[in-house]
Amino acid sequence: MNSKILTVGDEILIGQIVNTNAAYLGDVLFAIGMPVEKSVTIGDDEKMILDEFKDSLENYDLTIITGGLGPTHDDITKPALVKFFNDELILNEKILEYVTKLFASRNIIMPKVNEGQAMVPSKSKVIWNANGTAPGIWLEQENKVFVALPGVPYEMKAMMEESVVPMLKEKFLSNLDYVLKQKTLLTTGVGESVLNEMIGDVLSIIKNDKLAFLPSIEGVRLRINVKSDTEENADKRVSEIENQIREKIGEYIFGTGNDILEEITGKLLTQKKLTLAAAESCTGGLLSSRITDVSGSSAYFLGGIVSYANEAKIEFLDIKEDTLKNYGAVSEQTAIEMAENVRKNFNSDIGISTTGIAGPTGGTAEKPVGLVYIGYSDREKTYAKQFLFSAFRERNKKRAAQEALEILRKELLQK
Amino acid sequence: MNSKILTVGDEILIGQIVNTNAAYLGDVLFAIGMPVEKSVTIGDDEKMILDEFKDSLENYDLTIITGGLGPTHDDITKPALVKFFNDELILNEKILEYVTKLFASRNIIMPKVNEGQAMVPSKSKVIWNANGTAPGIWLEQENKVFVALPGVPYEMKAMMEESVVPMLKEKFLSNLDYVLKQKTLLTTGVGESVLNEMIGDVLSIIKNDKLAFLPSIEGVRLRINVKSDTEENADKRVSEIENQIREKIGEYIFGTGNDILEEITGKLLTQKKLTLAAAESCTGGLLSSRITDVSGSSAYFLGGIVSYANEAKIEFLDIKEDTLKNYGAVSEQTAIEMAENVRKNFNSDIGISTTGIAGPTGGTAEKPVGLVYIGYSDREKTYAKQFLFSAFRERNKKRAAQEALEILRKELLQK
Repeated sequence: MNSKILTVGDEILIGQIVNTNAAYLGDVLFAIGMPVEKSVTIGDDEKMILDEFKDSLENYDLTIITGGLGPTHDDITKPALVKFFNDELILNEKILEYVTKLFASRNIIMPKVNEGQAMVPSKSKVIWNANGTAPGIWLEQENKVFVALPGVPYEMKAMMEESVVPMLKEKFLSNLDYVLKQKTLLTTGVGESVLNEMIGDVLSIIKNDKLAFLPSIEGVRLRINVKSDTEENADKRVSEIENQIREKIGEYIFGTGNDILEEITGKLLTQKKLTLAAAESCTGGLLSSRITDVSGSSAYFLGGIVSYANEAKIEFLDIKEDTLKNYGAVSEQTAIEMAENVRKNFNSDIGISTTGIAGPTGGTAEKPVGLVYIGYSDREKTYAKQFLFSAFRERNKKRAAQEALEILRKELLQK
Repeated sequence: MNSKILTVGDEILIGQIVNTNAAYLGDVLFAIGMPVEKSVTIGDDEKMILDEFKDSLENYDLTIITGGLGPTHDDITKPALVKFFNDELILNEKILEYVTKLFASRNIIMPKVNEGQAMVPSKSKVIWNANGTAPGIWLEQENKVFVALPGVPYEMKAMMEESVVPMLKEKFLSNLDYVLKQKTLLTTGVGESVLNEMIGDVLSIIKNDKLAFLPSIEGVRLRINVKSDTEENADKRVSEIENQIREKIGEYIFGTGNDILEEITGKLLTQKKLTLAAAESCTGGLLSSRITDVSGSSAYFLGGIVSYANEAKIEFLDIKEDTLKNYGAVSEQTAIEMAENVRKNFNSDIGISTTGIAGPTGGTAEKPVGLVYIGYSDREKTYAKQFLFSAFRERNKKRAAQEALEILRKELLQK
């Protein structure tokens, strides 16, 4: 069972947009056992699109096409499909009604061009797009499947999860003689090579299965891939590998799969009926923003202070002028006062703080760019930890916010 | 003059790594006038690599191959090139010496396998890799060029800039009879199809040139592509198209090219010597985080309040209890008080605020998910604008932060 990804769009070819869709699709199709063997990106050019369709029909069980489904003149994926499958476009009343309503709900009169979104190839199954106006299209010929999806990442992803993956499992994967399983362990706070060293002899753990280290700014994901004869044996093997890894590096694993650190801390706060406030300097609002990315966070997150100017630290966080004078805004002492006072001023159970040199300028020999202090305070204890990140502003903000959430998670686990 | 990108590596296909190399190469090659027409990713598989080489020789002036040049058994790009060009590997003494020294300087004994890095096809020109052990390879046949580069992004980029681009200009571009030019106009606050309708008859404006609409959550980018006989005429044609578009939708264009909205507002604040403070409810810190993504923002951004709980609105922003009781936290009145009071409490020149129903829960018939008010206040005036975004929390946060920055930009232009 093999797959091909076909990305259509000049903007990808000339590098205006990085093709994250292809990475997402590669990941999903690999996980269900229909690995991508070729990924092709071409422009909005009919001849090239038709050539790729021909190659797909000859060589691949599945081709997923993204892009070129919009309503404007340069979107030609749909007409190309109609031509290739000798089909015609017919009006889908349900989609027309939906698209019309979507515009009405936004108080916008629907531009005429959008009516075309409701036209679909007569031989196709329609894949519902709950988040946009372009429906997906499923077409089959000689047992080969073509799926066309919009290029907007969140529309495409939702359609994959809700419709395409279940349809693919039904079509291709109901009669296999093996089972593939995958599990990802999420770590933060320690690098790839250090994790590798702590785990030790990886091959003796994984044997014929696979373990991949996937580093990113926020941490390293460890992905376990197992192939076995039955569902039960595959699950057992995944557990064996996971347990051996957890024995070595368990304290750095904050979750699995699609877990998100701010959701994990949010659940812990909810379970333990505790409230939180944040005082941010070097993260500049990013920590609060991540906390409030979680739906329902208003139940435990009371708010925060972004104290960029020293006057704001004094006015809203009661940082002592002496502390700023003697130790500086970027110091363990300031981080401690920020965490303690944001807790007191918001009347929350827990306060968390960040202060550091985000860079790229503003560093000194004594306090280099990347130096960050993260403060934690609850009713029993208050402390700050020192970190030295990188020379890059964006990375420093991200890593500081991540470490603050991880400190919070570890404290909450003990409550 | 056309190009193809060939990326070799299983890790890209299965989505472990996003293919940022392809975006970089697409950008560079487009800029020098050798646009990428196809970008293909395949695994470390000899047959598929050779098939792609065949396609390259038939259809593309230039093929840039990345990946598969390492020293291990699964790196097969070099042997595949040797096979395809009926060539043989010969030892390059200079590279051997360099690689040996590189390991010595890192205090590592060079593994035997790395000697292979100094073996290159006899017909090739070597492209020096100052940052790693794998040299690049330049091969020509029938006036078609193949360039193989390592997949490590910073090695590849340095080799492109220092060697490959100059070699390409020498080989292909010294005698061209046309010029390509590109310009991107950045808009926010209005959708793709509405922009399309406002511009009207696109074809009468662009004629034989190209205009692409590139939508994202934060706005739509309009990319103009022009081909002309001289540098001067190409620039003139770009200006003509740009001016015609600006006549129709100028008020929505906040910048061009790689401009970033928070940098534009930051520059305006700096020029006009004004300071800013933010009061955020529904954006939860995202607005402050974007403002502080800009290096040097501490000069004009004094800080912000993330007032998630009503108590925080009262305590830090002096929102009247009557306002909250009579109009609610999500209301024009609250947004106005937030903007005005954050300005006064931080003693800044300008205050900006957001309050809304981020969702996905918490909406009512009267105040649906996606309803957002953005407040603006300076010493002369204070007001709030109402928006209705989407059903999605993350998108609502992003769009609200974007609109807040856009309101700020428009106000600053008038100062």
